[in-house]
Amino acid sequence: MRLIQFSACAVLVLAACTQNATKPAPVSAAKAAVLNNVSEVLAQTRPADWREPAPDNLLVMQLATGSVVMELAPQFAPHHADNIRALAHEHYYDGLSILRVQENYVVQWGDPDEKREIKSAQRTIAGEFWRPTTGLNFTPLADGDVYAPEVGYSDGFAAARDPKRGEAWLAHCYGALGVGRGMGADSGGGPELYVVIGHSPRHLDRNITVAGRVLQGMEHLTVLPRGTGALGFYEKPEQYVTIRSLQVASDMPAAQRPQLQVLRTDTASWDAYVDVRRNRRDSWFLDPVGHVELCNVGVPVRTKPG
Amino acid sequence: MRLIQFSACAVLVLAACTQNATKPAPVSAAKAAVLNNVSEVLAQTRPADWREPAPDNLLVMQLATGSVVMELAPQFAPHHADNIRALAHEHYYDGLSILRVQENYVVQWGDPDEKREIKSAQRTIAGEFWRPTTGLNFTPLADGDVYAPEVGYSDGFAAARDPKRGEAWLAHCYGALGVGRGMGADSGGGPELYVVIGHSPRHLDRNITVAGRVLQGMEHLTVLPRGTGALGFYEKPEQYVTIRSLQVASDMPAAQRPQLQVLRTDTASWDAYVDVRRNRRDSWFLDPVGHVELCNVGVPVRTKPG
Repeated sequence: MRLIQFSACAVLVLAACTQNATKPAPVSAAKAAVLNNVSEVLAQTRPADWREPAPDNLLVMQLATGSVVMELAPQFAPHHADNIRALAHEHYYDGLSILRVQENYVVQWGDPDEKREIKSAQRTIAGEFWRPTTGLNFTPLADGDVYAPEVGYSDGFAAARDPKRGEAWLAHCYGALGVGRGMGADSGGGPELYVVIGHSPRHLDRNITVAGRVLQGMEHLTVLPRGTGALGFYEKPEQYVTIRSLQVASDMPAAQRPQLQVLRTDTASWDAYVDVRRNRRDSWFLDPVGHVELCNVGVPVRTKPG
Repeated sequence: MRLIQFSACAVLVLAACTQNATKPAPVSAAKAAVLNNVSEVLAQTRPADWREPAPDNLLVMQLATGSVVMELAPQFAPHHADNIRALAHEHYYDGLSILRVQENYVVQWGDPDEKREIKSAQRTIAGEFWRPTTGLNFTPLADGDVYAPEVGYSDGFAAARDPKRGEAWLAHCYGALGVGRGMGADSGGGPELYVVIGHSPRHLDRNITVAGRVLQGMEHLTVLPRGTGALGFYEKPEQYVTIRSLQVASDMPAAQRPQLQVLRTDTASWDAYVDVRRNRRDSWFLDPVGHVELCNVGVPVRTKPG
């Protein structure tokens, strides 16, 4: 009993949100009474509150243990989205390996000796560390941030912006998909990618390209043995974790594509969701703080109903 | 090369800090020139900059894969520290199991049906969610916080305080050791414990007792298979991960006790460390943000030199 009760506070992580997603009810969260938790919010969403990522923006990485589904964010990194699609289309990643798993930091994959030929895609392109704020969907989060002047959500991605500079960028939250680079801003491009598996390393924001985020399958990355070499690199090739394939969903037969939906971050249901993340009304909470931080909100993902 | 260069930004996580800890040089960081990174700061620390946790405050949990070393924080949760010591002393935890591993949240262990006898210790005690600020060592972090009026470090633990209330509490950062409870503030006590393995769930602060933090061995917890039941609970007893033993170091032969040191958080070396976490001077960083967040600082731990 105690375990379950303690666990009441745990319903609010993305995995649980997915678990708790139920078929949409006809009533909009906007019209609903005060809601107490994520389950209640999700139960009141309408079909229109959910977005289906375009197959062109979905990456499916097959590991021996299962698949990791990632969504690209071309609105923030259009050239990297194109190049990663091109790399996947020419099967560049297939048979490569996860080379690095650093505790409380990142999982990283690529070609250890960069010998694999790149055909139609490019090995390096200019970094896309930020974009103009103009023309960007952005739902601000009112709670403030340590790293950026303003934070919020753009089409389901945790993001930040600087009104004075007129710049916006994706935040390195847990599950962010990043593009490994060398010393120069133009030394990355997609052949090496990483996913954040620890406390969100926001100091990387604006210093490296974030190309998207993981929607499903984080547990296939986070359980991987930590590398014992410097910075979490595997020390022996036999430790490498093989990537069976990494495909763009649009290159897959329709029947095999992931059927996922992401809660829209520009709806009344989103506002209701953020409200229950900020104001914990479940009776387990004795002294709810009334604030929530960008990377601790989580954007719900569910399997397409029906 | 690119992998290594990208990795330059990764030297700053706790595991890496430990890795990079070197024998203290005679020069104090306070007297040193501007330092560029954690390695340089740690290389200039003096022996007096490091604290050796008291064996009475060290918990050693043995799993099949290795040991997890945790430090209790009696200055924040004295009664829970006493009760957890008493539980460990009577071997309460030995042979119990990790029952729950929830992705991006917590690892939790205890007695699934609460049948195990508790002899000298207590099953439940009053929660210790905060303490008075008076008499507490506290080194503020100037960068602000989303959740608390003020944050900082107390004897190596990430903490927060509210000057108006005159209250201080431990923060739920990655690696925090918490005490599972039921609905009531006095429904926990130590028989069930959890460790944070995801993005820091700061919304739990002040709502549940934090008794300490993990100093070494997080990788033995974070790689555990995620539970497929609701909230990450393992669905079958055969999935449980056995705790071979959980001892207080002072109950172990001196030769078997962990030999760890924690960088003091009330020294010039600490100030220098926070400075390099806040201002990334490694040339890899093209646009360092100049801010750092409480749970992203990390408190260096090393094996006792010599």
